[in-house]
Amino acid sequence: MYQSKLFSKTRKEAPKDEVSKNAQLLIKGGFINKEMAGVYDYLPLGLIVLNKIKNIVREEMNTLGGEEITMTSLQRKELWEKTDRWDDKKVDIWFKSTLKSGAEVGLGWSHEEPITDMMKNFITSYRSLPIFVYQFQSKLRNELRAKSGIMRGREFLMKDMYSYSVDEKSHQEFYDRAIQSYLKIFDRVGLGRDTILTFASGGSFTKFSHEFQTILDTGEDVIYIDRDKNIAINKEILSDELIKQLGLNKNNLEEVKSVEVGNIFSFGDVKSKQLDLYYKDEQGKPKAVILGSYGIGITRLMGVIVEKFSDEVGIVWPTSISPFAVHLLNIGSSDEAKKITDKIYADLQKNNIEVLCDDRELRPGEKFADSDLIGIPLRVIISDKTITSGNYEIKERRKGKVSLLNISDLLDFIKKYK
Amino acid sequence: MYQSKLFSKTRKEAPKDEVSKNAQLLIKGGFINKEMAGVYDYLPLGLIVLNKIKNIVREEMNTLGGEEITMTSLQRKELWEKTDRWDDKKVDIWFKSTLKSGAEVGLGWSHEEPITDMMKNFITSYRSLPIFVYQFQSKLRNELRAKSGIMRGREFLMKDMYSYSVDEKSHQEFYDRAIQSYLKIFDRVGLGRDTILTFASGGSFTKFSHEFQTILDTGEDVIYIDRDKNIAINKEILSDELIKQLGLNKNNLEEVKSVEVGNIFSFGDVKSKQLDLYYKDEQGKPKAVILGSYGIGITRLMGVIVEKFSDEVGIVWPTSISPFAVHLLNIGSSDEAKKITDKIYADLQKNNIEVLCDDRELRPGEKFADSDLIGIPLRVIISDKTITSGNYEIKERRKGKVSLLNISDLLDFIKKYK
Repeated sequence: MYQSKLFSKTRKEAPKDEVSKNAQLLIKGGFINKEMAGVYDYLPLGLIVLNKIKNIVREEMNTLGGEEITMTSLQRKELWEKTDRWDDKKVDIWFKSTLKSGAEVGLGWSHEEPITDMMKNFITSYRSLPIFVYQFQSKLRNELRAKSGIMRGREFLMKDMYSYSVDEKSHQEFYDRAIQSYLKIFDRVGLGRDTILTFASGGSFTKFSHEFQTILDTGEDVIYIDRDKNIAINKEILSDELIKQLGLNKNNLEEVKSVEVGNIFSFGDVKSKQLDLYYKDEQGKPKAVILGSYGIGITRLMGVIVEKFSDEVGIVWPTSISPFAVHLLNIGSSDEAKKITDKIYADLQKNNIEVLCDDRELRPGEKFADSDLIGIPLRVIISDKTITSGNYEIKERRKGKVSLLNISDLLDFIKKYK
Repeated sequence: MYQSKLFSKTRKEAPKDEVSKNAQLLIKGGFINKEMAGVYDYLPLGLIVLNKIKNIVREEMNTLGGEEITMTSLQRKELWEKTDRWDDKKVDIWFKSTLKSGAEVGLGWSHEEPITDMMKNFITSYRSLPIFVYQFQSKLRNELRAKSGIMRGREFLMKDMYSYSVDEKSHQEFYDRAIQSYLKIFDRVGLGRDTILTFASGGSFTKFSHEFQTILDTGEDVIYIDRDKNIAINKEILSDELIKQLGLNKNNLEEVKSVEVGNIFSFGDVKSKQLDLYYKDEQGKPKAVILGSYGIGITRLMGVIVEKFSDEVGIVWPTSISPFAVHLLNIGSSDEAKKITDKIYADLQKNNIEVLCDDRELRPGEKFADSDLIGIPLRVIISDKTITSGNYEIKERRKGKVSLLNISDLLDFIKKYK
């Protein structure tokens, strides 16, 4: 793609009311635009990153046996009343509105209720189970404060998966597979090393839920990590009894700030009973379906990645979700420099390597600054000086390391870069 | 894909309050689920169809030079007040809600206002223009009645594109290209022959807008078509004067019922002036940007296709947007029948032909009925009887025509089928 064709240019300043590092960098880099606190538009570069994250998550959900669907934002009041989650005193983040008829409707902040209700049309006997469904959906949550950029949005993209199983054993089997799948996702987007499976508070049915917490100074959570066992406990439920129960040693626990990037939860048969979702077992007896819920905040994940992988001059995208693999900068003024740039651009495209070519008429310094800010992992620089040697400069955004390579070595280097 | 893996089964009955043919068939076929009037979930098969339509539209938008973005559902009141479209007396389909702070917010039913406002960050001089941006987005419209299934939703998926141009001439050039692009889209999804470019009422700036109206008995609009010139006039603006002005003859006009599947609109500089979007021309003088707006209701399009292409037993999908190219039915009981089915399934997959294989243990009659309902263009039937001959039955859903072909001819037939 040619940068001159991109309407979304970099900006010198983020809006003054934007205090989060992730949104400041993403706005300045032209990835997102701020509508209001916690509400952001995704511009072409931002949408590419979002789609790359979605595709990684989608692949892993499909591997788990998930079937993709799309539920609606509009929610029926009577459904959420059945599970006692309609009242603003019980759930304080509802956006609600009113139909022309005067009937109240909600805007979806989660979807256990409608999906479980829908399943009554499809689950009859034990033969219908298990069922794993997931969706990517824009959720609305009426947050009192929204100061963390895209890490805590009033409107945000979430992947939510729901599992319907015949019994606790079959549920647990899937739940454990889902944990592995989630760890793989965080690994693939570049957060593997710093994302820890964390015990958190459960609900009416289970003692615990599991969170996936990424270590982050600007995170809103506090967790206690056992580095050897690679598990953690959320501060909310930390107790001597629990530490003992999990076979951990208090002295080995390290307190860190973190942000929740995923969360999985067993509802047992509570919600199925509330919503009347039963199946017939092999003896023809009605039994309540066992429900699990598995969430990943897709836009939040993008925000966390920016918070973690950035420096004083801009973003440093992990290769797997970078909008492009290569940023090709022509800073020369000669026809020859343009010719070489065009050739390398064509070579990269031929090799299916995604490339953003800065073909704009700007000073080299401006191009370098924009490139630092946008944060593509590899930068290839064509200058009038280097073309005579036949070796071209390639700079790694992460390490700052510069190499001079001929075209063939350049392509090899790019193909192998991770 | 194996049908036994699909959680979304066909249903004998649609909900009693569902009066539209498109939603009845789509619910019975397991494509969608009804949340409330005008609000539908998309199940795996429905989502595949929706994504196929989206991909066709996306390809054409990209060919036009469009850049894809995603705006938000939450809308700022003050923005829509500037263009006098906030008041419920002016726009009667708003869903509105309230932030914790007490501030009112809207839920997006269109996006000219926020996109135009956002462009102030990116449009400076004539060099920034033209810009064409588009999105696929879930819109909310508080319709008084919603009885047309997915043809008129309270929550629905729309593709909206916006063009920003330096002057009327450059705008008109793009507008005309957009008309061609839209006609191509309707052609590609199978509605080409019956979708007519229609003159409709304009706004404060232009005399006309253009609608793309598909002839349909259950449509809510009435248009007057000139079959020779392949253009029409919406009843709303029909007059002797207009007929004359367009060089048409009253006696050649045919009155038909129709449904609007697309709509394009010139705002001129009206909205830019209201929202303060100016650029500097070559002389450095500020000028208001010329705005155009181009919509296609993606879910409506799917509904119209179902209304048009269906018969008394089910849907008849056009090949380009069918969830699968082939429905493979094993109605035999022998190991040999299963072996042949598996082989054909593998052969189809090897040839990148999308296939749904009905591997469920059901009576042939039930499989045929489901297959008729789901409406995949080609059905291959493997029975104990046919396997001895080495020729297999292939039935065209549209014409009902049956052929007996060996495996190699079968593959050729499927590859060529349109």
